[in-house]
Amino acid sequence: MPKIKPVNIGLIGAGRIGSFHGETVARRLVDAELVSIADPAPGAAAKLADKLGVDASYTDVAELLSHPGLDAVIIATPARFHTNVLVQAAEAGKAIFCEKPMALTLEDADRAIDAARSAGVPLQIGFNRRWDQAFAEGRAAIDDGKIGAPQLIRSLTRDPGPFGADPDKIPLWTIFYETLIHDFDMLLWLNPGAKPVEVFAMAEALVRPDAREKGFIDTAVVNIRFDNGSIAVAEANFCALYGYDIRGEVFGSDGMVTMGDVRRSSMTLFDKDGVSNDTWRRDTDHFVHGYTAQLASFFNAVRDGELMDGPTGSDARNALAIALACIESISRRRPVAIL
Amino acid sequence: MPKIKPVNIGLIGAGRIGSFHGETVARRLVDAELVSIADPAPGAAAKLADKLGVDASYTDVAELLSHPGLDAVIIATPARFHTNVLVQAAEAGKAIFCEKPMALTLEDADRAIDAARSAGVPLQIGFNRRWDQAFAEGRAAIDDGKIGAPQLIRSLTRDPGPFGADPDKIPLWTIFYETLIHDFDMLLWLNPGAKPVEVFAMAEALVRPDAREKGFIDTAVVNIRFDNGSIAVAEANFCALYGYDIRGEVFGSDGMVTMGDVRRSSMTLFDKDGVSNDTWRRDTDHFVHGYTAQLASFFNAVRDGELMDGPTGSDARNALAIALACIESISRRRPVAIL
Amino acid sequence: MPKIKPVNIGLIGAGRIGSFHGETVARRLVDAELVSIADPAPGAAAKLADKLGVDASYTDVAELLSHPGLDAVIIATPARFHTNVLVQAAEAGKAIFCEKPMALTLEDADRAIDAARSAGVPLQIGFNRRWDQAFAEGRAAIDDGKIGAPQLIRSLTRDPGPFGADPDKIPLWTIFYETLIHDFDMLLWLNPGAKPVEVFAMAEALVRPDAREKGFIDTAVVNIRFDNGSIAVAEANFCALYGYDIRGEVFGSDGMVTMGDVRRSSMTLFDKDGVSNDTWRRDTDHFVHGYTAQLASFFNAVRDGELMDGPTGSDARNALAIALACIESISRRRPVAIL
Amino acid sequence: MPKIKPVNIGLIGAGRIGSFHGETVARRLVDAELVSIADPAPGAAAKLADKLGVDASYTDVAELLSHPGLDAVIIATPARFHTNVLVQAAEAGKAIFCEKPMALTLEDADRAIDAARSAGVPLQIGFNRRWDQAFAEGRAAIDDGKIGAPQLIRSLTRDPGPFGADPDKIPLWTIFYETLIHDFDMLLWLNPGAKPVEVFAMAEALVRPDAREKGFIDTAVVNIRFDNGSIAVAEANFCALYGYDIRGEVFGSDGMVTMGDVRRSSMTLFDKDGVSNDTWRRDTDHFVHGYTAQLASFFNAVRDGELMDGPTGSDARNALAIALACIESISRRRPVAIL
Repeated sequence: MPKIKPVNIGLIGAGRIGSFHGETVARRLVDAELVSIADPAPGAAAKLADKLGVDASYTDVAELLSHPGLDAVIIATPARFHTNVLVQAAEAGKAIFCEKPMALTLEDADRAIDAARSAGVPLQIGFNRRWDQAFAEGRAAIDDGKIGAPQLIRSLTRDPGPFGADPDKIPLWTIFYETLIHDFDMLLWLNPGAKPVEVFAMAEALVRPDAREKGFIDTAVVNIRFDNGSIAVAEANFCALYGYDIRGEVFGSDGMVTMGDVRRSSMTLFDKDGVSNDTWRRDTDHFVHGYTAQLASFFNAVRDGELMDGPTGSDARNALAIALACIESISRRRPVAIL
Repeated sequence: MPKIKPVNIGLIGAGRIGSFHGETVARRLVDAELVSIADPAPGAAAKLADKLGVDASYTDVAELLSHPGLDAVIIATPARFHTNVLVQAAEAGKAIFCEKPMALTLEDADRAIDAARSAGVPLQIGFNRRWDQAFAEGRAAIDDGKIGAPQLIRSLTRDPGPFGADPDKIPLWTIFYETLIHDFDMLLWLNPGAKPVEVFAMAEALVRPDAREKGFIDTAVVNIRFDNGSIAVAEANFCALYGYDIRGEVFGSDGMVTMGDVRRSSMTLFDKDGVSNDTWRRDTDHFVHGYTAQLASFFNAVRDGELMDGPTGSDARNALAIALACIESISRRRPVAIL
Repeated sequence: MPKIKPVNIGLIGAGRIGSFHGETVARRLVDAELVSIADPAPGAAAKLADKLGVDASYTDVAELLSHPGLDAVIIATPARFHTNVLVQAAEAGKAIFCEKPMALTLEDADRAIDAARSAGVPLQIGFNRRWDQAFAEGRAAIDDGKIGAPQLIRSLTRDPGPFGADPDKIPLWTIFYETLIHDFDMLLWLNPGAKPVEVFAMAEALVRPDAREKGFIDTAVVNIRFDNGSIAVAEANFCALYGYDIRGEVFGSDGMVTMGDVRRSSMTLFDKDGVSNDTWRRDTDHFVHGYTAQLASFFNAVRDGELMDGPTGSDARNALAIALACIESISRRRPVAIL
Repeated sequence: MPKIKPVNIGLIGAGRIGSFHGETVARRLVDAELVSIADPAPGAAAKLADKLGVDASYTDVAELLSHPGLDAVIIATPARFHTNVLVQAAEAGKAIFCEKPMALTLEDADRAIDAARSAGVPLQIGFNRRWDQAFAEGRAAIDDGKIGAPQLIRSLTRDPGPFGADPDKIPLWTIFYETLIHDFDMLLWLNPGAKPVEVFAMAEALVRPDAREKGFIDTAVVNIRFDNGSIAVAEANFCALYGYDIRGEVFGSDGMVTMGDVRRSSMTLFDKDGVSNDTWRRDTDHFVHGYTAQLASFFNAVRDGELMDGPTGSDARNALAIALACIESISRRRPVAIL
């Protein structure tokens, strides 16, 4: 068998999650090569490139896209730039892995989907939970009919404080666009074939009550009614002192699956204070295997021309539609229909 | 020390839960004596009395109330009779343990509270979860400040099918009046001092979709906003194939407590199919200790003239107000304010 | 149905465990009445009798045995008196519940068994773990063939420090006679039909190394080979800072059962330090239901003339034989055959 | 920063575990390159080389050792060849990763250690459990003093049937040399600084009783006494129907740590049969991360000239000494001193 040809990757965005994706490509995956990094912040791309042993760095996306031999890009810019960069990469003929959210409006979502389709390039969205061992097994159990028809579904994200609670640095609706978007994708993915029809959201600024007047939200509960009658709850908060907490639960006519555990390992300490376990503190620690597997899956598809089995632009649009309905529901203080 | 004087108990209602309470008094509690049973169904009280070794049985509540030496009554009739029986017992000067819901309207709730107050008799409501070891420890942790200020709260009831899914035998709104009323009490009790200000409910007939046209509901999700900014979710379903599932979760500014586990014991089986535990199947099996402890607490209060620490008529009214708001929210398909 | 006739109980021994049994009879069990208490220590029986509302107290066992109407006795004296008191009670025709160990020599064990048999009185030994929910379910799973033939078996006792680590107050071999005797009974009971054939023990004074020269032992590991080829390990220690820890494990040709959990309830705390549970601290807290159920079972047998299903004098003798073999194995530093 | 220079690896042995190590190098690790494979079985090396995209394959170890540019070898031959191959590789100046057991006699162990020392090459032994997340955290907790002084220690291996229960294919004492050797290393590693002084073993053929007369053993329990007074139990069996089960437990003066869980993930199924989890079935599935991490650590040491922190030849000798004492204890049916 001939050796596998590596996929050549360009990384766009050298911030926290971009750096992590860069490390995944450079350090945790064979058969993929990180060949260039772009970030408009002076020196950011160069610094990360140096750390990861990558030769080329740019401050301009267009330059990165014309880097010779580039097969695919990872888009990890701030969310508001995702769509434009995605369209630019599609027009350059590159396969695209784009962090969530793919877009902030349905128009932009359609524009992104159209650009990828017109260019004939693969497009995968960074809904990494689908590759987590527990969530993947939960979906498989549902597909195997082990819990019957889903009736009550829950997905939650509780993020430790340091990441997201600074209202001056992050957009007002981040909890829906960037955090709960994961949960919306999970709720759709764990309820195969069902369509959301109605959304109701309650939200507050409890972590940073001083930011309430600016409209900043750090705590939210969302109800979603689906066309198969099932009802889902998504929930998020920006200050989980005990660490990164991601759970899912699907209750059906024949049983239930639950997924997610904050415990860092099976190592359990028993002492005068009782029984205890350490917990994962960051998303990238907790889900390192899922983050790695989603890129491996994407790279396989790019290299082998396989069909993508990852989340598509259409999946991104469906999750976004729920996020937008949440924002409307908050504003109007009532349930909102999804068309 | 002189021997403890037993409390003489009359049981009103010899159905499923009444029989269980009768057994608790006769078989699981010392210092209390079941001396009479009343049920209008011909032979029902007599049959239970015979089984439990009780001498007196009646088909009429008034007769039971005039049974000599009676200290207290347990009201376990169908819910729609609770208030009238309660008022009657109060006027007869008996201490009262009343199953939930104490009333189906706020007017009746006030009438019940007034009757007990005027008569100067103790009144305790059957919110047995407060005595479950795990829930009691959870409340204690909250009182001790271990999780800071509550922000996100969850309480759920998933009942196995046999009990509650027959739309021809149970009232339309039972899921709110009789099932979720437990969860509403828990959400209030686990959020000390907070007042509910807004309620939104989604509900469906998923277990018995054929009963949907009658308005029967077997699945519901309720959101409650409190005046301290915290948001709660209550959830119920009438067909949990894996057994009786009661859980609570309170997430706060400094941490979280979770309560409830369906596993019947720590006995765990490992075999070719994996790892497994048996589960509790009925409320009365799962919570036998809580059911017993709530009556023991009530009897102590009756005998020793202690202050009640159990749920009061006022607690019953507060939970009922949420149930009524749910029904209104379902009907109007929008959030409803609680005054 | 006529009311159940209570069994009249005499308690012999008003120490820690005697007081606990007295409370169980007086406070946790209907259908049994604690009518008299004896303890040679001046005032001990009277003090407990006053606390529990019992009319009669004695410093002499013979007086207690002649208390009118006495049906049964609970023997909870120091272990070295068990056999003589048991024989005395048998000769008085009383049904006997005797704490472990029933005897400290095989000769005394035979004498006790003979006395009960000659007198025709029921005799049950205080191996309370058989009534613990988890252990009972484990035995049932084994009887149902769910794990096939037992091959590797484990039973352990780890006792918190305050109770047992004072070498000046407790006999040298207590860890075998009084602590591991529970585990030996479990290993025999969880391996139905098998006979122990060889025993090897290792032991140390680790909790109180200063007491080593007196021969005091606080830590021990025991291996037992059975005639069906299975191998068992029993383990004990006198200073478990995290609380009372009792576990069992039976691995067989088709699977495994495990039993025992130190967690006090399902209430779980998540905070900046991780995930934690409180633990049970004392045997009588951890196993309150098993302690109660064993007496209820004994009283039922006494009252209704049913066959005893509890541990018999013969079971006590079998466990004792292993304890004696351990002491010989320690002394000779080699494995010892059991005949 | 310049790119990291890959370590060039030769794999010796293309059987089950050799193939797995080969896949780890080729598929799961960057910065290492599998450049050649040797196996005396005709075609075995070539077949694996083809599958993994490796260019060179040999049937002779000497040829592999002279492959140009080779930095290190992984020795995964049958155990009885380990020492000779190790010495040969050392003499060729290659860094060595050797599967357990490094040797089958203390003389061979010394010969291996001397060869590596003389050649000045790194030598790491395949005690992969040290890199498992839970075991590594357990050791860290012990080092941090969280459980005080170790008193009772347990390590167990229960292997699913298909791998090890064929007495015609595997050596008689495999359970000690190849299986429990892992547990002996764990017991030494989790009891830092302590030396074993006495060993007692009980063993049986329970999985394959028909092979008992050949001396084949598939079930064993080993007791070890250490010079700090602590007592350890190691336990193994060759037919765990529920999957690969590796656990550790260290009980000390201030607490306890436990490590190991057979559950495959946090995905939990609740259905009419109760609560259940799937389990890991093979060692290489269960411990894939530990297997990968041990090689990554070895390769880092080779490439960067760092000190090895992995298990050394001396560690292998210490574990072997216990295995040899077990065999002697079985033969003599008594405890055996370790000098």
